[in-house]
Amino acid sequence: MSPRLELSRLSLNQITIDQCSLPEAIEACGRAGLTVIGPWRHKVAETGVEDAARRIREAGLRVSSLCRGGFFPAADAAGRRAADEENRRAVEEAAILGTDVLVLVCGPPVGRDLEAARAEILSGIERLIPHAEEHGVRLAIEPLHPMMISERSAIVTLGEANDLAERFDAPRVGVVVDAYHVWWDPRLYAEIARAGRRILGYHVADWLVPTADRLQGRGMMGEGVIELRRIRAAVEAAGYDGPIEVEVINREAWARPGAELVRAARDAFAAAA
Amino acid sequence: MSPRLELSRLSLNQITIDQCSLPEAIEACGRAGLTVIGPWRHKVAETGVEDAARRIREAGLRVSSLCRGGFFPAADAAGRRAADEENRRAVEEAAILGTDVLVLVCGPPVGRDLEAARAEILSGIERLIPHAEEHGVRLAIEPLHPMMISERSAIVTLGEANDLAERFDAPRVGVVVDAYHVWWDPRLYAEIARAGRRILGYHVADWLVPTADRLQGRGMMGEGVIELRRIRAAVEAAGYDGPIEVEVINREAWARPGAELVRAARDAFAAAA
Repeated sequence: MSPRLELSRLSLNQITIDQCSLPEAIEACGRAGLTVIGPWRHKVAETGVEDAARRIREAGLRVSSLCRGGFFPAADAAGRRAADEENRRAVEEAAILGTDVLVLVCGPPVGRDLEAARAEILSGIERLIPHAEEHGVRLAIEPLHPMMISERSAIVTLGEANDLAERFDAPRVGVVVDAYHVWWDPRLYAEIARAGRRILGYHVADWLVPTADRLQGRGMMGEGVIELRRIRAAVEAAGYDGPIEVEVINREAWARPGAELVRAARDAFAAAA
Repeated sequence: MSPRLELSRLSLNQITIDQCSLPEAIEACGRAGLTVIGPWRHKVAETGVEDAARRIREAGLRVSSLCRGGFFPAADAAGRRAADEENRRAVEEAAILGTDVLVLVCGPPVGRDLEAARAEILSGIERLIPHAEEHGVRLAIEPLHPMMISERSAIVTLGEANDLAERFDAPRVGVVVDAYHVWWDPRLYAEIARAGRRILGYHVADWLVPTADRLQGRGMMGEGVIELRRIRAAVEAAGYDGPIEVEVINREAWARPGAELVRAARDAFAAAA
């Protein structure tokens, strides 16, 4: 088991308080004593990326990663070109925001062909690398829970994310370990060890029993059944000592005041992450 | 791709029409031209197992498997003894019903310790084997979708089921491949090939997009996105040529007349399984 976490490790993944604007999120972080944030592109777009970067910087916050690029599989060549353009913009936004990590949620298959989707994801990453390198941004493949395969990502295990990442040089492509997405995997600890220095981010939330909402039903750390301390110890043993993003996507929580949620996230982080 | 399926391969997994009694299910099978059924213990219990066996036999039906034994992890020794007794009864019921396959849904972890749950499952199977052997019943480990880990099964991948099964002699312990539970797995085809002659059953349903109910939201074959023909071809290439159970667990469908659902299952089986 790892020692108690310093608050300085905590990054607020912005979707945890999707009901708030970026300025509101920045203020809530400041009031709760947080120093790191993981913004989402749709929230950054509300103020514009340059303005967002300035606000974050002036508030004294660091950016752990940008969520998200990806969504590579497309129905046709025009769709692939549109995805490529969107991903290049995401790279540029990450650089402007001052983070070198762009999280990739790889996208669901189009139709039934999973293997084709996985091949498209590989080639989409390949095409994005030169632009990412030029901007000093690393691509972080995040495997998602298999229950989200048809809406979010055809990449559903850390093993598969490692397979993909290992096709490329280590400084360019890595993985994100999100405890909520991977905790069920019998190969989890072997794959965390294998990922090693390719781990570019670690995300936490908890698995509620029962899980009422398949896509937006995550719990705060300690409310569910994930062995968070054990997973963190493995991630740290693999060599990761960067920010830990609290990413609690919960539809019901979005009805609560953002500042209250950030305080709850901070306390749950200290108690259970 | 495999050739069109003969109707004689189709077994009605009884939970597909959980709203019907066993006598009603038997009648619906007969009217739809089905010759195989996969009963569930809670339905068999309604008439008693001897009576159920007689009714099934007199209707000219065969039994593909009995659902289900398992649920091994328990909070204490008394819980483990109770599970052991329940599982021995399940073995006896399978034998009385005339099937040599008892499906094991292994049960969720108690609390957070997944590794302990998996160890308990291994030792639970180990303890059950002598009784199963005595009754000529094989134990078929069914990995379930990872989204069901906290309600149904700590065994969530075919690879893990294969690992477990290989701890024992092949005629005693095997696996069930259920397309709904395993289709998302990047290692699926490798693990089907590895399972080979240990495959003791093949189940079909379809993954609806979106999936509205995490536990009881399956679609009929062809309504969703699973590459069912490809998975069946792999299962057959691995050596399995036994019954294929249609197991469509769908809460909304249980409001429909059972006979109508059985006809729909038969037609979907021919068209898409």
